[in-house]
Amino acid sequence: MNEPKEQHRYCDIQSLNDPHSTLKKFYTVNPIFICVISYTETSEIPGITMAGANSELVKYTSAADSEFLYYGRCKCINNVPATPDGKPTPGLITRSALQLSDIPFLVVDAGSKIKPSIPFISFSVKPGENIRSGNAVCFNDVKKLYDYGFTLGVQLAKTNDLVVVGESIAGGTTTALGVMIALGIDAKFKVSSSMPQNPHHLKNSVISEAMERSMVFFGDLRDEPFKAISLFGDPMMPSVAGIASGVIKSGSRIMLAGGTQMAAVAAILNSLHLPLDNISIGTTCYVAEDCFSNLVELVRSVSNDIPIYSCNLHLAESVKPGLQAFARGYVKEGVGAGGISIASMIKSNGRINGTVLLKAIELEYENVIEKVLLK
Amino acid sequence: MNEPKEQHRYCDIQSLNDPHSTLKKFYTVNPIFICVISYTETSEIPGITMAGANSELVKYTSAADSEFLYYGRCKCINNVPATPDGKPTPGLITRSALQLSDIPFLVVDAGSKIKPSIPFISFSVKPGENIRSGNAVCFNDVKKLYDYGFTLGVQLAKTNDLVVVGESIAGGTTTALGVMIALGIDAKFKVSSSMPQNPHHLKNSVISEAMERSMVFFGDLRDEPFKAISLFGDPMMPSVAGIASGVIKSGSRIMLAGGTQMAAVAAILNSLHLPLDNISIGTTCYVAEDCFSNLVELVRSVSNDIPIYSCNLHLAESVKPGLQAFARGYVKEGVGAGGISIASMIKSNGRINGTVLLKAIELEYENVIEKVLLK
Repeated sequence: MNEPKEQHRYCDIQSLNDPHSTLKKFYTVNPIFICVISYTETSEIPGITMAGANSELVKYTSAADSEFLYYGRCKCINNVPATPDGKPTPGLITRSALQLSDIPFLVVDAGSKIKPSIPFISFSVKPGENIRSGNAVCFNDVKKLYDYGFTLGVQLAKTNDLVVVGESIAGGTTTALGVMIALGIDAKFKVSSSMPQNPHHLKNSVISEAMERSMVFFGDLRDEPFKAISLFGDPMMPSVAGIASGVIKSGSRIMLAGGTQMAAVAAILNSLHLPLDNISIGTTCYVAEDCFSNLVELVRSVSNDIPIYSCNLHLAESVKPGLQAFARGYVKEGVGAGGISIASMIKSNGRINGTVLLKAIELEYENVIEKVLLK
Repeated sequence: MNEPKEQHRYCDIQSLNDPHSTLKKFYTVNPIFICVISYTETSEIPGITMAGANSELVKYTSAADSEFLYYGRCKCINNVPATPDGKPTPGLITRSALQLSDIPFLVVDAGSKIKPSIPFISFSVKPGENIRSGNAVCFNDVKKLYDYGFTLGVQLAKTNDLVVVGESIAGGTTTALGVMIALGIDAKFKVSSSMPQNPHHLKNSVISEAMERSMVFFGDLRDEPFKAISLFGDPMMPSVAGIASGVIKSGSRIMLAGGTQMAAVAAILNSLHLPLDNISIGTTCYVAEDCFSNLVELVRSVSNDIPIYSCNLHLAESVKPGLQAFARGYVKEGVGAGGISIASMIKSNGRINGTVLLKAIELEYENVIEKVLLK
C-alpha cells in the first residue's frame, strides 16, 4: 500500500520507445558520472553553435563547464557560464543533480582546447579539426581514444553498476550528423541544436562538402566507424564509445547522457557489433520533444533495443527567464544534464524528481548566475 | 565452527603497532587503488636510488610502472621493467594483486617527467626539482596539488569504502627525510631504500645542505607542512596528502600504501591537524622488517593512532632469484605493492593470501620478465 506506483515514483521520467518495461526494471545503487570534454574546430564555422557567446569564447566552453561542475564557478574565464542575457550552461542542471544525489563524477579531457583547472583524466590528444577543411581526427588518435576509453570503462565497471557519460563539445551535432550519414543513418534535419533556429541547411552543406572532398557517400562507412569518425567526427565520439564498450564488456551498464550526439555514439557502437542491451540514452525533454530534431527516430534507425529516457525538469514553469529559455529551444541539453538528472531520480528512488531538481537549479542559478549578472 | 579464526584468515598480514584490535575490525567491500606517479630531480644525484637502472632511465620509471599496471608491458621503454639481472619493478606485485582481487585502479600524474601512454588523471604540474640546488616544488603548486588531491578524494569516497594510495617516484625517500626533519621527526637513518646498502650518509648530507641553504632546521616547519614540502619535498606528497584528506573528510578510509615515504605523508596530515583515525599504512614485510630503516618508529613519532599493516608475500621462498631479491633488501616496496596486497587479502576475506599471491606473482614474472630476459 505504501509502495508508490511506478509512474508516480518516476513521474518526471518518460521512456520514449518502450513505455512499459525498461523503466520499471531500471535501478542503480552506485552510479558514476563521466563528463567528456572536447573540441572541434568545426565549431568555429560562423552560425553553427551557440555554446559560448562567440568563436573566441567557444574554445573555453568545455573547460569552463567542467570547472563549474567542481567549484560552482569558472577559473578559465572571468565570468559566469551564461549568455549576457542569463541563459546558463546546462552544466548548472548537471551540478544541481550531482549535488542532490551525491553521485561521484570525473572529467575526461579528450582534446579540449583550453585545459580546465581541475584534476581531469587526460586522454592525451589534440583538438579535432574543422571537417570542412580537412580530416576531423587522425585515424591513430581515433583508435587510441577508443582504447583509452575502453581501459577506463573497464575500471569504472568494477565498482559502478551504471556509468553515465555526458559531453561538452561545441559544434558536436554537426560532426554527429556527418558520422551518422557515413554510417548509413538518414540524419539530415534530425540533429539537435543549442539554438531555437536550428541551422540545418548550414550543417547539411558543411557535411556535403566534407563528404564530397573525401569521396564518401551515404552509408559507405557502415562497417568502418573509426574511419567515419576520423573523416567527419570529433574526439569526443571514440572516447565515449570506448568507455561504453569497456563498461558493457565488463558486465555493467552505460547511459549515454545527451541528445542527438549520443545517437551518433550509439550508431558507432552498433557498427562495432557491440551488444546493445546494456546501453540506454538519457536526455532532457527539451531535446526529446524538440520539433526541429528527431532523437527518437535517429536512435530507432540504429536499433530498437536502446531505451531512450527523457526527463521533465519543469523549466517552463521556472520563475527565471534564463531557465525558461531551455523550454523555448535554447541550450536544451549538454554536460550530461538530462542523463544525470534521470540517474539522480532513479538512484534516489524518486525522492528527487523534476520539481525537486527545479528548486535546486533555481537556487544554484540565483547564487551563481544572477548574483553576478544583476550586479 | 566453519568460520576461520582471525589470525588464520589474514595469516599473512601483521598489524605492527596494534596486534589485537585494528586488523579484526578491518574490512572493505569496494576499495579502489590510486597510484600517484611523480618525479623529483633529486633522484638524479648519483647513488641515491636504484629505481631505474641509471639516471637516464630513472625518468621513465613511473611512466613505465603505470603502463605496466594496465597492459602488463611498457610502452615508453622498449624493455621489461626490471634490472638486467631480473629484479622486477614492485609494480609486478601490484598488478598481480589487482588482477586477483579485481580491485579497480586509476593513475594520477603529479609531475612525472615522461607521460605514460594510458588514460591518467592529470594534476597538471611540472616535475619536482633537485632539493640540493633549489626549492623542491613551487609553493603555489604544493597548494594546488593538495587541492586537486582533495577534490579527487571527495569523489572517490562517494563509492569506495577504502582508497588505497601508492606512489611511484624515484628518490622519494630522500625528500621524505627532508620533510620529516623539517616537521620535527627524527628521521635520520630511518628512511628506507630501494637498495640493500641504504645510502643514509648521502641522503643526510643532501638534506643538511638543503636545510642550511634555506636556514631551516629540525622542527622549524612543524606547523608549515606546505612550506616543508615546497623546500624539501616532492610533488607526490601534497597530492597523496590531498587525496587522503578528501577521502577522510568525506567519511571514508584511506590506506597509504608504501614504506617510509608514506610516514612523511602521515606527518604532513598530522601537521595539518587532520583526524587520523581513518588512516592506515600498508606495506610489505620487506620494508617493515628492514634493519636499515625504521618505519614503525617513524610512524609512532607522528602518532600512535595510525595502524601499520605489513604483508608477507613469501618472496624469500620464491623459485625466482629476481623475486627472492626483495627479501634480500632490493626494491622492497613501491607502486603500492604492499598496501594493495593487503587490500586484496582483506577484500577477498582471506581467500587471497601471501601464498596465493606468490603463485600469481611468479606466473606474471615468467610471462612478462623471464620470457624477454631469457630470450
